[in-house]
Amino acid sequence: METRILAQNAKQAAIALSGVSGEQKNKALAMIAERLYQHKDEIIKANEKDVERSIGENLASPLIKRLRFNEKKLSDVIDGLNSLIGLEDPVGKTLLSTELDESLELYRVSCPIGLIGIVFESRPDALVQISALCLKSGNAALLKGGREAAQTNRILYELISSATREAGIPDNWINLLESRQEVSEMLQLDEFVDLIIPRGSNEFVRYIMDHSRIPVMGHADGICHCYVDDGADMKKALAITIDSKTQYVAVCNALETLLVHEDIAAEFLPALKEELDKRNVILRGCNKTRKIISCEPATEEDWKTEYLDYILSVKIVGGVDEAIAHINTYGSGHTDVIVSQSRANIEKFMDYVDSADVFANCSSRFSDGFRFGFGSEVGISTNKLHARGPVGLEGLVTYKYKLIGDGHIVADYADKRKHFTHRRLTKNFQVK
Amino acid sequence: METRILAQNAKQAAIALSGVSGEQKNKALAMIAERLYQHKDEIIKANEKDVERSIGENLASPLIKRLRFNEKKLSDVIDGLNSLIGLEDPVGKTLLSTELDESLELYRVSCPIGLIGIVFESRPDALVQISALCLKSGNAALLKGGREAAQTNRILYELISSATREAGIPDNWINLLESRQEVSEMLQLDEFVDLIIPRGSNEFVRYIMDHSRIPVMGHADGICHCYVDDGADMKKALAITIDSKTQYVAVCNALETLLVHEDIAAEFLPALKEELDKRNVILRGCNKTRKIISCEPATEEDWKTEYLDYILSVKIVGGVDEAIAHINTYGSGHTDVIVSQSRANIEKFMDYVDSADVFANCSSRFSDGFRFGFGSEVGISTNKLHARGPVGLEGLVTYKYKLIGDGHIVADYADKRKHFTHRRLTKNFQVK
Repeated sequence: METRILAQNAKQAAIALSGVSGEQKNKALAMIAERLYQHKDEIIKANEKDVERSIGENLASPLIKRLRFNEKKLSDVIDGLNSLIGLEDPVGKTLLSTELDESLELYRVSCPIGLIGIVFESRPDALVQISALCLKSGNAALLKGGREAAQTNRILYELISSATREAGIPDNWINLLESRQEVSEMLQLDEFVDLIIPRGSNEFVRYIMDHSRIPVMGHADGICHCYVDDGADMKKALAITIDSKTQYVAVCNALETLLVHEDIAAEFLPALKEELDKRNVILRGCNKTRKIISCEPATEEDWKTEYLDYILSVKIVGGVDEAIAHINTYGSGHTDVIVSQSRANIEKFMDYVDSADVFANCSSRFSDGFRFGFGSEVGISTNKLHARGPVGLEGLVTYKYKLIGDGHIVADYADKRKHFTHRRLTKNFQVK
Repeated sequence: METRILAQNAKQAAIALSGVSGEQKNKALAMIAERLYQHKDEIIKANEKDVERSIGENLASPLIKRLRFNEKKLSDVIDGLNSLIGLEDPVGKTLLSTELDESLELYRVSCPIGLIGIVFESRPDALVQISALCLKSGNAALLKGGREAAQTNRILYELISSATREAGIPDNWINLLESRQEVSEMLQLDEFVDLIIPRGSNEFVRYIMDHSRIPVMGHADGICHCYVDDGADMKKALAITIDSKTQYVAVCNALETLLVHEDIAAEFLPALKEELDKRNVILRGCNKTRKIISCEPATEEDWKTEYLDYILSVKIVGGVDEAIAHINTYGSGHTDVIVSQSRANIEKFMDYVDSADVFANCSSRFSDGFRFGFGSEVGISTNKLHARGPVGLEGLVTYKYKLIGDGHIVADYADKRKHFTHRRLTKNFQVK
């Protein structure tokens, strides 16, 4: 079908879906879980074909690992659906209510965003998670997964689509795009598509931003920092640095640059080097660092680089102010950590570091929707508008203002015959 | 100064400003009010020059009216500053707090957006309102007002800038751009500017969106509808239609298209025509309308047009479903009204009309930050992301996640040595 028609139909489905009750959406989520379990053999078989073809195409082994969708991953996905059912409906919540005047009441009520286009990597579990988050938040979706997972994505899409149809969810709420051409077309459809969520490389996200008028929610880079302050607990600082850098190197919340207070560097860096050497991490240091430990020199380019690899750049700084200035200059506004025993320095760092996630005395790797208790996430936003940091259900809704009067007109207030009361109410939206 | 350097300095000021207390910001607002009052003669003199020059350039009289900044407008502006001082500080509010595990606590805390570029029409009072909203919400600003108000803007800017410097607000937080060239340059500075708020014509807002990677908050069009349902109170329907259309025609929340239920049209339309004729409103009707009252024919183009003038297009519809479909097809997502006595139809209209403001039994002209009780507004947003509808202080802040641990690392949770508690807390952010 033409992408334009697909999007137009999906937009209509979005409007119908915005009125579906939380109960019915939960019923549909349960139906998806059931259907995936019933058809697990077919899903796994389709995935084996994708994996086999991708091995033949010499896909890198970490990517093969992400592509694989076995019984264990299916069971995780079904657990995820069940926990999503347990979360409160994010739609229809009264966020503010104000009496403007007698019998003239204003309500700010949460509602779905509408039609969301999501482009994601070759991870079939992402398709299920994203669809489920969209459904629970009342949004219709145009989904484009990685080419490598094509067969798995198709069967998952068909199962989800038929399960939700049976549960009474409006047709066309979920749609699968299968070519890059369709993605290019989607980027032009700003009359139907309300939001694009691209997951992928920095270059890819920037490409999307430059080729669409549709708002984009995503993160471009994850250049995360850890600053070890003077007086920091050495043992904790070591554990946090190692975990942030090595617990999973290929992800956006992994550590890329370590900043160390000059008065603690001589003690901390040799101990750190010993631990990181064991884990095959290559260090690149500033001149001061290289006077303490032997390592490659870091250039200006290193401070701007997201390695996503076993490499760490190290800089010695004069204190928390220099650390903050470095992060605000070279960072990407994702996640930055201070290890310190000083309350004043922690507060300063958290106030002035201009990032979505500012952490004290814990690993940068905690920056994640599941770990934050949001159930799951559609991504991590380094945008400052709308949703920032890990984005779960709440980031997928907006609000509208509902004002109920009894024949009220503005002329009465302009001519001072009537006056606003602007009294805060504590009740939920309801039409009398 | 080069625009790039100006923006870079303003961005640094934004970071410093993000840590300034509510008390100090209020002190600065009071200082602005005092300074404007002290220098009122100079301000008014500068404005007279702007007005005189604009009359010489044959500027339309409604625009001259907006440009004029007399003692009355100055006193309104000072009242506005004082009421802003009375509002709660929107920065530093704890919006969510969760225990992730023992001694690992997550807080979502409101914070300023950063550096905001605002381009506004030739209304000197807007400069003061916008600066004051930015200051109270902790944001630095790049301001570009209409050319016609150049001299008034310059003196207002200088007074605000020196008053806030004296009150201890970081230098360079407020900056005046004075040429279109500088605005063009600003649009490219996405590394420093966090948000653009354009106020002006539809074409102007689209131009900005197409020429910048910076997020834009604004509304393109205000094609507002009123649907008069079968069984509506005739007297209220008349008053609401007249007020929505004629109370102030040149504004975005004025009515452009009236939708009337077919069973009530024969009674309602002749009475409406009589009233609108008195007010010189030209009617353009669909074929069915023209069988009831004499008027110009409405074309497809009329349904898509924001007249901002004494013109109203009228369409007869079969019921609330057709009204909703018409609005979602031709509307601009701004403000739409239903006049009805049916609770079911009001609920349906409010749920399914995909607009920022959906009103029942009151005028579309209520869609305004002051009338909503937000103090004042920087504009009305038809974006769905971040802020929707009239945007006051709350729309000018974002949030960051602050996570405080005690040496916590992710490996412990990945290896199941520790487990998340995800317990909702009720306390405000504080470093122990």
